[in-house]
Amino acid sequence: ADVPKLGTCITCHGRDGVGTSPVFPNLAGQKSLYMVQQLEQFRSGARKSEVMNVVAKPLTDAEIEALANYYEGLKPSGP
Amino acid sequence: ADVPKLGTCITCHGRDGVGTSPVFPNLAGQKSLYMVQQLEQFRSGARKSEVMNVVAKPLTDAEIEALANYYEGLKPSGP
Repeated sequence: ADVPKLGTCITCHGRDGVGTSPVFPNLAGQKSLYMVQQLEQFRSGARKSEVMNVVAKPLTDAEIEALANYYEGLKPSGP
Repeated sequence: ADVPKLGTCITCHGRDGVGTSPVFPNLAGQKSLYMVQQLEQFRSGARKSEVMNVVAKPLTDAEIEALANYYEGLKPSGP
């Protein structure tokens, strides 16, 4: 199933949930509730990030939920 | 080797880097540079967290580096 707005996330966090540079965190297998909370904070501006404040701004609660569930469901790659 | 201050981290993030509750992020295998940046932001207060602002406050740069390296080096557990 398509996850709305995923196309934006994968630029930095990968479709596989592995950050595409050392400053982009891995999200594969991350706890969805944590990611929901962080996306809400990025959306409101409570957590500051030039990139994330912009991309989280238009997300709906349902989209945040779907994106967090998508990334939680991925198998993390080990070191 | 002992990692200084690790004892504080493991309460929420586990010795294995798996968060001990749904609101505590997994850190196992996370990118160390990302974790260094976040710990610096928690230490300065630029990123807000009631818990992390307190525990990051006394960390030295060397301790932040060591903690980030420790958690990056752990194998993440999949979903």
